[in-house]
Amino acid sequence: MVAVSTLDTKGPETAYLAERIRQGGLEVLVVDCGVLGEPLGITPDISHESVAEAAGSTLGAVRSIGTRGAAVEIMARGLSRILVDLHADGRCGGVVALGGAEGAVMAAQAMQALPLGVPKLIVTPVAAGRRTFGPFVGLRDVMLMHSVVDILGLNSVSRAIFDNAAGAISGMARARAARPAEPGRERLVGITMLGNTTPAVMRIAAGLKAAGLTPLIFHSNGVGGPCMEEMIAQGRLVGVIDFTTNELTDELVGGIYAAGPDRLDAAARHGVPQVVVPGCADFFVAGPRESVPPQWRGRPQYHHN
Amino acid sequence: MVAVSTLDTKGPETAYLAERIRQGGLEVLVVDCGVLGEPLGITPDISHESVAEAAGSTLGAVRSIGTRGAAVEIMARGLSRILVDLHADGRCGGVVALGGAEGAVMAAQAMQALPLGVPKLIVTPVAAGRRTFGPFVGLRDVMLMHSVVDILGLNSVSRAIFDNAAGAISGMARARAARPAEPGRERLVGITMLGNTTPAVMRIAAGLKAAGLTPLIFHSNGVGGPCMEEMIAQGRLVGVIDFTTNELTDELVGGIYAAGPDRLDAAARHGVPQVVVPGCADFFVAGPRESVPPQWRGRPQYHHN
Repeated sequence: MVAVSTLDTKGPETAYLAERIRQGGLEVLVVDCGVLGEPLGITPDISHESVAEAAGSTLGAVRSIGTRGAAVEIMARGLSRILVDLHADGRCGGVVALGGAEGAVMAAQAMQALPLGVPKLIVTPVAAGRRTFGPFVGLRDVMLMHSVVDILGLNSVSRAIFDNAAGAISGMARARAARPAEPGRERLVGITMLGNTTPAVMRIAAGLKAAGLTPLIFHSNGVGGPCMEEMIAQGRLVGVIDFTTNELTDELVGGIYAAGPDRLDAAARHGVPQVVVPGCADFFVAGPRESVPPQWRGRPQYHHN
Repeated sequence: MVAVSTLDTKGPETAYLAERIRQGGLEVLVVDCGVLGEPLGITPDISHESVAEAAGSTLGAVRSIGTRGAAVEIMARGLSRILVDLHADGRCGGVVALGGAEGAVMAAQAMQALPLGVPKLIVTPVAAGRRTFGPFVGLRDVMLMHSVVDILGLNSVSRAIFDNAAGAISGMARARAARPAEPGRERLVGITMLGNTTPAVMRIAAGLKAAGLTPLIFHSNGVGGPCMEEMIAQGRLVGVIDFTTNELTDELVGGIYAAGPDRLDAAARHGVPQVVVPGCADFFVAGPRESVPPQWRGRPQYHHN
């Protein structure tokens, strides 16, 4: 298990969290990603110098780089390499991070380098309000917990939050360690779906199952399509039925389910058999009513919660 | 432990999740919030009829109400009452929900009726991309997990996600049940803070501690202020130092850290001693550069990640 934080400001809180995980019987390595100051009341297992060096830099260079964004980018890159290496060594049964606005984004970027299924939890006050999930979650199974109070101080409220976080990451790590091996004979076929295409996809899924294949269904909301394309690139799918291609329309006209210019490329690039159907390609998705671009306001609209 | 889902579409997945929780040694009550169809391959402990009735309605009335939003609102209200009652009876050591776009919002609204500290987990494909945390989290310690694939089908990918979800909610419930009682002599003083006011708040916090009080610090990002005001209304704070009142400026000029028109009212309304300081009241927070309202574009800007 790995616990990540900026220990110059969140040392005591991270020490408390790590201690709760240890009391539950699991080992935990503490990694410091703080840039400005020295660890407060805790000695990390992996220092901020080591994190900077894992990115091919030094802590001194990171401190003098000039912008916070650039410093965070380097530390996230170093942390990412450290997590990937620990995971390869079997020493990363899960990652939990305590972070403010920058610490949470830094930890999230690094966690996204770990494969699906490795437990990933971020506890932060910024997982609330008008913030979007995208920067934290990417294409992964990242879990976010709103800390309600700032991660600054141990009291009855913050201890309740940290105790739950320790329980969640420990419970996930134990569950994962206890999993029976998957049979491994599964042949996965990726399918994209939204509400409107659900009846059709249900019929397709039944047909695939009858043929001994396993349908793997992705929500084509600007994230599901790219998640599927990543699995295609990883060689995990034996075929693709790209039934719901609205992400292309969204990309073209500025909808919020846009998935970038590379959508629909992976199967051809990797030689995976693919059927493409223009399901839902006749609309795009906008945010609140007032955010519909002026040139589309005269078109028919359907309001969905 | 309570597991919530719309069992007309997510019956087998919910049955799998509940079984994994039971295999871990915890009891689980399954609640059906599905509106349209009957439970698929699972018999819930609390039926969708009971959920509609807990909201003072009937399933027939919900089905014929005309809009999906109105149906979801009634079911969320019924579920909320059921969760609050189960919690009062000591039968809700945590809540886990599997949901699509509507199911996740419905479960989230209901979970927000439970107090801080009661484990709350939502597993959904919509916790990603450009969706915002606000509707799911509200003012609570809700945990969101991106399911990567749609909650439709059991396969090696979805089982890995559901196994982690079962581990997380079970681990939290166990951690909470095993918590030592808080001493209870704590006298909490709420303080609002952002990065700019951190040095000042650190000094204040030290002074409060020296005086035998416990500072409880809230991030004034449009959610932290209202979280503090709710705790004031609940009688949990003996005093307030509202040091960082930018949420008022944001409300006034349309910033994204706006916290509604009632911000700053709770302490006066509930007779809690309060010091108000206009920290950070000289700026407001906007989203991406291009979203700054035209009338403010000539003002000095600071770009923060």
